Amino acid sequence: MPVKLSTADSDFDSQFSALLHQKRDTESDVSAVAAEILSQVQVRGDDAVLEYTNKYDRLTLHDAASLRITKSEIANAVNECETETLEALNIAAARIEAYHKVQLPDDYSFVDHDGVELGYRWTPIENVGLYVPGGLATYPSSVLMNAIPARVAGAARLVMVVPMPDGVINPLVLAAADLVGVDEIYRIGGAQAIGALAYGTPTIPAVDKIVGPGNAYVASAKRHVFGTVGIDMIAGPSEILVVADNQNDPAWIAADLLSQAEHDPVAQSILITDDELFAAEVERAISLHLTTLPRSDIASSSWTTFGAIILVDNLSEAPSLVDQLAPEHLELCVDDADAMANQVRNAGAIFLGRYTPEAIGDYVAGPNHVLPTSRTARFSSGLSTLDFVKRTSLLRLDAESLGKIGPAAVKLAKAEGLDAHALSVGIRLNIPD
Amino acid sequence: MPVKLSTADSDFDSQFSALLHQKRDTESDVSAVAAEILSQVQVRGDDAVLEYTNKYDRLTLHDAASLRITKSEIANAVNECETETLEALNIAAARIEAYHKVQLPDDYSFVDHDGVELGYRWTPIENVGLYVPGGLATYPSSVLMNAIPARVAGAARLVMVVPMPDGVINPLVLAAADLVGVDEIYRIGGAQAIGALAYGTPTIPAVDKIVGPGNAYVASAKRHVFGTVGIDMIAGPSEILVVADNQNDPAWIAADLLSQAEHDPVAQSILITDDELFAAEVERAISLHLTTLPRSDIASSSWTTFGAIILVDNLSEAPSLVDQLAPEHLELCVDDADAMANQVRNAGAIFLGRYTPEAIGDYVAGPNHVLPTSRTARFSSGLSTLDFVKRTSLLRLDAESLGKIGPAAVKLAKAEGLDAHALSVGIRLNIPD
Repeated sequence: MPVKLSTADSDFDSQFSALLHQKRDTESDVSAVAAEILSQVQVRGDDAVLEYTNKYDRLTLHDAASLRITKSEIANAVNECETETLEALNIAAARIEAYHKVQLPDDYSFVDHDGVELGYRWTPIENVGLYVPGGLATYPSSVLMNAIPARVAGAARLVMVVPMPDGVINPLVLAAADLVGVDEIYRIGGAQAIGALAYGTPTIPAVDKIVGPGNAYVASAKRHVFGTVGIDMIAGPSEILVVADNQNDPAWIAADLLSQAEHDPVAQSILITDDELFAAEVERAISLHLTTLPRSDIASSSWTTFGAIILVDNLSEAPSLVDQLAPEHLELCVDDADAMANQVRNAGAIFLGRYTPEAIGDYVAGPNHVLPTSRTARFSSGLSTLDFVKRTSLLRLDAESLGKIGPAAVKLAKAEGLDAHALSVGIRLNIPD
Repeated sequence: MPVKLSTADSDFDSQFSALLHQKRDTESDVSAVAAEILSQVQVRGDDAVLEYTNKYDRLTLHDAASLRITKSEIANAVNECETETLEALNIAAARIEAYHKVQLPDDYSFVDHDGVELGYRWTPIENVGLYVPGGLATYPSSVLMNAIPARVAGAARLVMVVPMPDGVINPLVLAAADLVGVDEIYRIGGAQAIGALAYGTPTIPAVDKIVGPGNAYVASAKRHVFGTVGIDMIAGPSEILVVADNQNDPAWIAADLLSQAEHDPVAQSILITDDELFAAEVERAISLHLTTLPRSDIASSSWTTFGAIILVDNLSEAPSLVDQLAPEHLELCVDDADAMANQVRNAGAIFLGRYTPEAIGDYVAGPNHVLPTSRTARFSSGLSTLDFVKRTSLLRLDAESLGKIGPAAVKLAKAEGLDAHALSVGIRLNIPD
């Protein structure tokens, strides 16, 4: 049974705090193993990548050249896919691309009242690596969501790595990569793939940034190489928070809560409502849905272990609870969803009104489905075009403007004991030492 | 002597590659110590912070309340500062604020041709922690550069930690904090300060993001708490790259190279020029400056160990070398600096023309002086207002627009084996399972 809280309970604060600080992620400490694999890849390059790949993915590749997935393999994979599914992928890709184009930032420059010319300029990150998990959790939609923003930003080279345990790969993953124009695909995974992307090998030239989700080894390896290359957020377990009044169909809300729960036994689904009877109806609808859903084991485990129903006296109490939970996904299934959204500060994405189920955002709406999990929406944002560009500051002074603001710089440099700093300004202004 | 390369040399590529991959940072592995301190702070809170502070900073504080620096201590520090220096701080703060206001991003929303309403909204990160190193490397300019963007973004609570080894603190640091309206200041440092900010204690409520430079323990602790809170870049040693023709005063260029070298023995200064005689004049000017500069030991060690002069046949060769070096600071001391800047992709900040010494950007120009070091400009940007806001995606569909794009989502969800996802869309459209 999911935990049930009510803001009317005298111990609500402590119960809510327990919910907030509940640990869902059993982060295994694989740091030493990941570090050793990275070090081998850094020192021995292709040989190490080949050995680890054959060992962990039970393959028998003979040389580094065969790590790359060939054009004909990709073409064959595309041919294996259903036409209708490929059409749906196309619809998704076009909508995701349109949304991410809107996010491209503008350059800016201005001359201020002292005659100083200032500005900034955005340029694409040139080489981007995309990690795609193999096996069962391989999602073509994730390929679109990670690759399209990089492409829109203008990456010159987009490299994908995806392990093929026992030689198996989801053909839709290769079709999605083909659709968005990934330049190179390698059949490697784990910390060895992160090492190859970060340090480069003769076969796999290094990239500048690595994005995409992975298992504990991948996450640990990403933490290690952070600084050598850029990385995206390290994703924790996923969650949905649904705020719903009793004017919703309980079966709809139940489906929404389960759509999160079916991802993972450590996913979390929370309902905030002001109607106890409605909450009970949602619970019954969940039980009913679970009788038919293929992933009912996972969904049921997540819902009973980490699910929660929070009963509020009035829905006006919701925004402050939402901000503390800082959910990855927030559905506002209420009459005036805009008004409530305006009171919320911390959420990865907000799904407004009764006809915006979270799953529409996972696939085709357009915004990125890579969103901050596990309360990190307090300080971070979903993946976007901005993650694939960087900003260069631009400054230009002339003798006159340097004459105006230079003396303050000289003063501060001397106060900090950095006399060469002072000298480099003063020497241009004939300010004596 | 700094290393000298020429693009005319037959072994230039291997020499340049050695320069690129030169390791300046001797990162000591303090991860285990930092982890133990963090764990103690997480479990024992104020008691652990107090014990570590008394031990490492040689203080005799009796209770957690005395960790906070009081208003009268701050007022006394301000009184100790020279009026002229405070005025220079004010000029700097006003210019930094003006530049960072320009960076505030706009919200956006639109309705697309399918009737889907999409957009995003930016909100401030609420609680920001600012780490300021103690001892000699305490720079009031860094307080301004880290705190002002957070304030401009709209942080509700700005917390500063600064260790006071042996009870000593630079009064200008407190004056800078006072000037920008820091809300709370604690006399703590090291991994224990990072732990207090990340996990919170009864005395020091947790923050959502921690920024600011620190020693190896601080950097390691930040890596550990990344995910619990947001962190900024982990800064490596700093560098400057000056591209200069022979129309510059060698003494000016020499001062610019030394302004970087005086920071740290592992700082790096590189000159690219097309005139060997000019390069020799710069070298002589450096020697001359070094005879009078107070920090000549540090500057000289940096210049002789890590300095480099790259002679090119033609300055048109410079941009491709610049992009590979991806410098934190790039000075273009040439006639048409704009044209050259337009060919450069990877640089933290570009200082255009002969009257824009890098040091002007360290203090008063306005752009942030916290910039990507050690080649990380390939994938990251300087600190900005954007680092203190986060973006929430907004989505709204109605029955009609869900009818248009929903079927593609159902198709993809089923292809991924996520039937509850398909159900949550299909149930609203009466699409049978």
